[in-house]
Amino acid sequence: MSTTHFSYQHLFHFTHSVFLKMGCSDVHATTATTALLSADIRGIDSHGVARLSGYVRLWKAGRINATPNIRIVHETPSTAVVDGDAGLGLVVAPFAMEVAMKKAEVVGTGWVSVKNSNHFGIAGYHAMMALEKDMIGMAMTNASALVAPTFSTEKMLGTNPIAVAIPAQNQPPFVADFATTTAANGKLEILQRKNADTPVGWVQDIAGNSSTDANILKKNGALLPLGSDREHGSHKGYALGSIVDIFSAVLSGASYGPWAPPFPAYIPMPANMPGEGLGHFLGAMRIDAFRPAEEFKQHMDNWISRFRNATPIEGYERVLIPGDPEREIESIRMQEGIPLLASVVNDLQSIATSMGVEW
Amino acid sequence: MSTTHFSYQHLFHFTHSVFLKMGCSDVHATTATTALLSADIRGIDSHGVARLSGYVRLWKAGRINATPNIRIVHETPSTAVVDGDAGLGLVVAPFAMEVAMKKAEVVGTGWVSVKNSNHFGIAGYHAMMALEKDMIGMAMTNASALVAPTFSTEKMLGTNPIAVAIPAQNQPPFVADFATTTAANGKLEILQRKNADTPVGWVQDIAGNSSTDANILKKNGALLPLGSDREHGSHKGYALGSIVDIFSAVLSGASYGPWAPPFPAYIPMPANMPGEGLGHFLGAMRIDAFRPAEEFKQHMDNWISRFRNATPIEGYERVLIPGDPEREIESIRMQEGIPLLASVVNDLQSIATSMGVEW
Repeated sequence: MSTTHFSYQHLFHFTHSVFLKMGCSDVHATTATTALLSADIRGIDSHGVARLSGYVRLWKAGRINATPNIRIVHETPSTAVVDGDAGLGLVVAPFAMEVAMKKAEVVGTGWVSVKNSNHFGIAGYHAMMALEKDMIGMAMTNASALVAPTFSTEKMLGTNPIAVAIPAQNQPPFVADFATTTAANGKLEILQRKNADTPVGWVQDIAGNSSTDANILKKNGALLPLGSDREHGSHKGYALGSIVDIFSAVLSGASYGPWAPPFPAYIPMPANMPGEGLGHFLGAMRIDAFRPAEEFKQHMDNWISRFRNATPIEGYERVLIPGDPEREIESIRMQEGIPLLASVVNDLQSIATSMGVEW
Repeated sequence: MSTTHFSYQHLFHFTHSVFLKMGCSDVHATTATTALLSADIRGIDSHGVARLSGYVRLWKAGRINATPNIRIVHETPSTAVVDGDAGLGLVVAPFAMEVAMKKAEVVGTGWVSVKNSNHFGIAGYHAMMALEKDMIGMAMTNASALVAPTFSTEKMLGTNPIAVAIPAQNQPPFVADFATTTAANGKLEILQRKNADTPVGWVQDIAGNSSTDANILKKNGALLPLGSDREHGSHKGYALGSIVDIFSAVLSGASYGPWAPPFPAYIPMPANMPGEGLGHFLGAMRIDAFRPAEEFKQHMDNWISRFRNATPIEGYERVLIPGDPEREIESIRMQEGIPLLASVVNDLQSIATSMGVEW
């Protein structure tokens, strides 16, 4: 498929202008743009500017509040619940992560559960906010139900990602950021464009039978939890996705499980929602609340280099550390620009026209 | 395979006597026995009395200190590092979990990283300690390296389990407790006894090729991370196992990755260990540090019943909640007793003879 490269600066300026046009403050527009584009830079193309039109449609549908009063509604020295006031998750989650880090500064760790939010982009961005403060960062979110638990035909959970960012000394940080499914929805979308089948173990059909149809979600099929089937541990992926749902939404008072609000604005909101909006869970642990940060980071260097130097299987160049692939893409894209599919460029140009923003 | 049933009380009295003979205090022997037998009651046979002889051998080899001075060596209001003084993990982990819960009572959450410990039985037992206090409990541990990261022929991680226990109101609690591998080592042992093959995706051979040999670990093969292979998300299982290793051992100062001390006493300790003993990570979050506990637990009831009532795939009775299978086994075994294989009974009788304890 043909792609055109655009500089980070170009896409930043455009996206920032769109958020301003939605009515966001300059500070919020900057935060949201930085969070959104972190996906494009890191190669997670499904979660970056390709989604901008989705946010715009949610805003037009009145489901996103561009001028939210984001606030702490309950707290203890190490915890808080944040009400996102239906704001962009791209703005609400960084607010909550700042709260978590401030609490960590005072009592060692901070844990913030968020309600009444929206899609927050990539989990890794929020977790990585902790790195420069010598903290471990964690971020997770629930999402609209696309995933069938083990033995279920019904979709009950989102792809519910978990991100954990851990600083090192001279080595780059350890950054894990993954959906709790066998394959993220973005991988299906890539196969759809290629008209290709999925591997066995990614999806099931409406009756719960194994399927390789990349379009199965449009036919009432479901994504499978990490592990694929019971014999390969799908009950573990299902448990992980459930934990993310409960920490993000039941702890905060957001809407959970099959009631999580959908990202596409054309899908009606679920009936009888048991909470407000989407939920996130953010955590920060100060390294020196456990041991001196320098000492820890030196051991992380040792951990990382030992794992990176593990003997690879023949045919593979080397063993990777979580975060390696994204960092390699980032260094390329900051130089060469971000490749966008023609369909994404068209989409952005439509936004430009409809919002009166220069592309 | 033939099994004989023994009452919980019988096995408790015997195991308690063995720990006393090792020199444990009465309190420590009771704690260790309760933690160890929680595995047998819940049907996780690989981690219960079947392992008692393994603990005895570690003690005889001087690797377990029966009279440890377990102590906090560093702390903040929400964190601590505990030095287990080479004590039984079955005693050290409950100590650390108590510390975590006390901190949670004061500042909302408590997080304890443990060094210089040993195998702690099932992770779920420690996480479940939090339930009666209306807290969410978490427990994880590193373990000796049996697992190859994605693309690696070398074994770098243990089966590194994660447990999360979440209270409900009228429903039983949500209790997830799982190895971060496709299949736990105990499942291989069951197949070995039956002389059966493993499914594809559980193990690899010495060169990193896919294998179905249930004895492959004895031939320098490895267990695979949850996800089995790259195409099915093994990099996610590898990341999860790594996070457990880092939280348990790098944060605390225990020995991590391929240097984690082995459980079998006949295996020499790794050279150049970068830390002390095995590591654990325990966490407690007070529910009402986020929202009123009654309110949360009512929503958990709603969450659990909605998931349990999801439409099952034809041929399956129902969708399970994490903790359901173990609780069902527990209710049976507390009535009918705990079935032990003849080989395990022989093993316990040998301990009885060698330690001068009545079987």
